Amino acid sequence: MADHPFQIKPSIVSMRTRNPIRAIVDNLKVKPNPEKEFISLALGDPTTFGNFKLHESCLDAVKSQLESYKANGYPPSIGTEQARAAVAQAYTHPQAPLTSADVILASGCSDALNLCIGALANEGQNILLPAPGFSLYETLASSKGIECRFYDLQPHRSWEIDLNHLETLVDENTAAILVNNPSNPCGSVYSKQHLLDILAVAEKHRLPIISDEIYADMAFTGHEFLPISTLTTTVPILTTGGLAKKYLVPGWRVGWVLVHDRNGALEQIRKGLINLSQLILGPNSLVQAALPDILQAPKSFYEQTMEQLERNANISEKLLTGIPGLRPVFPQGAMYLMVEIDTSRFKNINDDLDFVEKLAEEESVLCLPGKCFRCRGNFIRIVFTPPVEKLDIAYSRIRSFCERHLASS
Amino acid sequence: MADHPFQIKPSIVSMRTRNPIRAIVDNLKVKPNPEKEFISLALGDPTTFGNFKLHESCLDAVKSQLESYKANGYPPSIGTEQARAAVAQAYTHPQAPLTSADVILASGCSDALNLCIGALANEGQNILLPAPGFSLYETLASSKGIECRFYDLQPHRSWEIDLNHLETLVDENTAAILVNNPSNPCGSVYSKQHLLDILAVAEKHRLPIISDEIYADMAFTGHEFLPISTLTTTVPILTTGGLAKKYLVPGWRVGWVLVHDRNGALEQIRKGLINLSQLILGPNSLVQAALPDILQAPKSFYEQTMEQLERNANISEKLLTGIPGLRPVFPQGAMYLMVEIDTSRFKNINDDLDFVEKLAEEESVLCLPGKCFRCRGNFIRIVFTPPVEKLDIAYSRIRSFCERHLASS
Ligand SMILES: Cc1ncc(COP(=O)(O)O)c(C=O)c1O
Ligand SMILES: Cc1ncc(COP(=O)(O)O)c(C=O)c1O
Repeated sequence: MADHPFQIKPSIVSMRTRNPIRAIVDNLKVKPNPEKEFISLALGDPTTFGNFKLHESCLDAVKSQLESYKANGYPPSIGTEQARAAVAQAYTHPQAPLTSADVILASGCSDALNLCIGALANEGQNILLPAPGFSLYETLASSKGIECRFYDLQPHRSWEIDLNHLETLVDENTAAILVNNPSNPCGSVYSKQHLLDILAVAEKHRLPIISDEIYADMAFTGHEFLPISTLTTTVPILTTGGLAKKYLVPGWRVGWVLVHDRNGALEQIRKGLINLSQLILGPNSLVQAALPDILQAPKSFYEQTMEQLERNANISEKLLTGIPGLRPVFPQGAMYLMVEIDTSRFKNINDDLDFVEKLAEEESVLCLPGKCFRCRGNFIRIVFTPPVEKLDIAYSRIRSFCERHLASS
Repeated sequence: MADHPFQIKPSIVSMRTRNPIRAIVDNLKVKPNPEKEFISLALGDPTTFGNFKLHESCLDAVKSQLESYKANGYPPSIGTEQARAAVAQAYTHPQAPLTSADVILASGCSDALNLCIGALANEGQNILLPAPGFSLYETLASSKGIECRFYDLQPHRSWEIDLNHLETLVDENTAAILVNNPSNPCGSVYSKQHLLDILAVAEKHRLPIISDEIYADMAFTGHEFLPISTLTTTVPILTTGGLAKKYLVPGWRVGWVLVHDRNGALEQIRKGLINLSQLILGPNSLVQAALPDILQAPKSFYEQTMEQLERNANISEKLLTGIPGLRPVFPQGAMYLMVEIDTSRFKNINDDLDFVEKLAEEESVLCLPGKCFRCRGNFIRIVFTPPVEKLDIAYSRIRSFCERHLASS
């Protein structure tokens, strides 16, 4: 043995499957200040602090399935008929009608995105992704050998897509445009006009859209969330969604693909999605059985969640305004906001990464650098779901930090 | 638009992702006899009939996690430390020690197998699979463009592997040997000697083993289940398992990979598995949090399950013995048994498929043909988990069917 050991080489696919956030976060030199309580504004999980909780009716729905002893068996790989029908009913729209046959359940929106990208693109093709954007898109695509082409979002135009830039990226190998609205990490909610403009580009190039709407309905006062599928009768769209954010149960791993076919354009894709669903099988059977009840959670629950999120957004807006060297871009929805860092105003702050590391080291406040999302320029992303008292402390520490590091002008 | 419609082509991967069972079952011409109650002996889901139930302690474990409001957030992609530690503790062995770092949770054993195959083999390589065997192996491998080479199991030698045949399949592109013990569809449980013989072949060719042990511990009197990892100190092994069968909750989608590294041979593979786990994230957080308690379900629960299964196996043995033209291979564990069909004894029965179709049509009893598992010869697979009364009826209908179709000799 010693002179001829086992040599087991890992697959190419497994080695190219990387989450760029991981690569950056793992290399962050973060040693929080031991004298200050550590506060993370980094994790896109609203349940961490206990201030955002699922509704009791959702808990009861799962509990009664559990107690019935009747929801422990294998569901079909695309999900049970009842669960898919409930999703169809919750998301159908006169302009974009859905039946259970248009719904494929998945193990979280992550898996739903994996199905969509896997069904639409071949190795060697490319897909168009937002920058800044959710880093899993890149993980999923590059795992499959699909090239990622990043189109710019414009920070000073409410993070709208630079559609001219996007169009320069399209070629004969482009398989799809991925749009994320409302956006992680931007907290933007697109206007009807902007969505129509996006659709016009998709139409012109005959490209399908993957619309990641995991933050569907999570828009603040003055902004309205519109499913992009409801604004077109011609562009084929795969919408992804799930329970994670709106229902405050990210760990439950329940997501879905909504197939908005147009004139049969997605007929083969639908088959491909069904095929791919067989690799894993969908979400937990208890939650599938409870899904019809979960989706009926009272409107007041959703309204309270949104009120609470919006209050946190407003506090963030208030407390981050006027901090020297920072330029927050105010959120329109979701649970994120991006803050631009004017490094020229600071001494000893090279870029967003440097800002994040020093802030953590001196103030024990953790944010993610824009680089995690392939953001151009220097930005940090703030998750504003922590309790108001924590936000208060975190923002005043950020203020002290910035004031302390200001270059003398 | 009309003269230049969207043409959205499905990916190659999505089109080659096929479950051979589906292809056969979907084409089965089965019109059950409307005058007889339909009885399925086809589905490998012990929970279908209500006679096999999870233990109350497992139900309570999930319920208390649910009520705590503390287990709804994102677990790490490989699973929580506590859940992984609990699995390590439950499956560690002096000859094959495990810590939490050796455990990767997955969305069912299916996902665990997907991770293992994905980490070990490249497109264009091959893996060795049992025939007959669980058809998902082929779905997973061919989805990735990995060639499936099928080694024979020997029905008249307790379904042991024909290791000579297996060796003829090995070449420089072979990435792994997949072994399934106890077996679906065979119900076989391998002896220590046979496992040692398998290991010797793996050692000789320096091939890692993927050991699918989803039916771990499910051996009947006179047979002992031995994890193959405990019989070698040199052959690197990835063991897959899960809660589905032993804990009677297949719909919960909880599985795992156990990394039995030997002298660092799997170091890169472990990284690959972790990378791949990021595509989906693992099982539901409630069940992860409950896992330490679930794995502590009383031994009496497991013993009762096994008694019940063994009773059903014995009844099957008794009632299928002596039916003309049938040769059942008695099961040693799991929940399946294969029955050989001597078509020469029948008139108008061409093969296993034909047997299955006519049996369903005339007697409203559904089994799966061996072809679903790439079984040579003519076999049907029987799942013997239905209640005894149903088995009674089903087997006496099978007897009438066979007697009626006997060729006059
Ligand atoms: C934009 C976006 N899409 C998808 C997801 C993944 O959702 P899930 O937890 O349902 O997999 C997230 C999670 O943070 C997200 O921010
Ligand atoms: C041999 C074998 N492996 C794996 C699985 C899949 O297990 P899970 O339901 O945990 O994905 C099965 C399910 O029937 C099986 O028979």
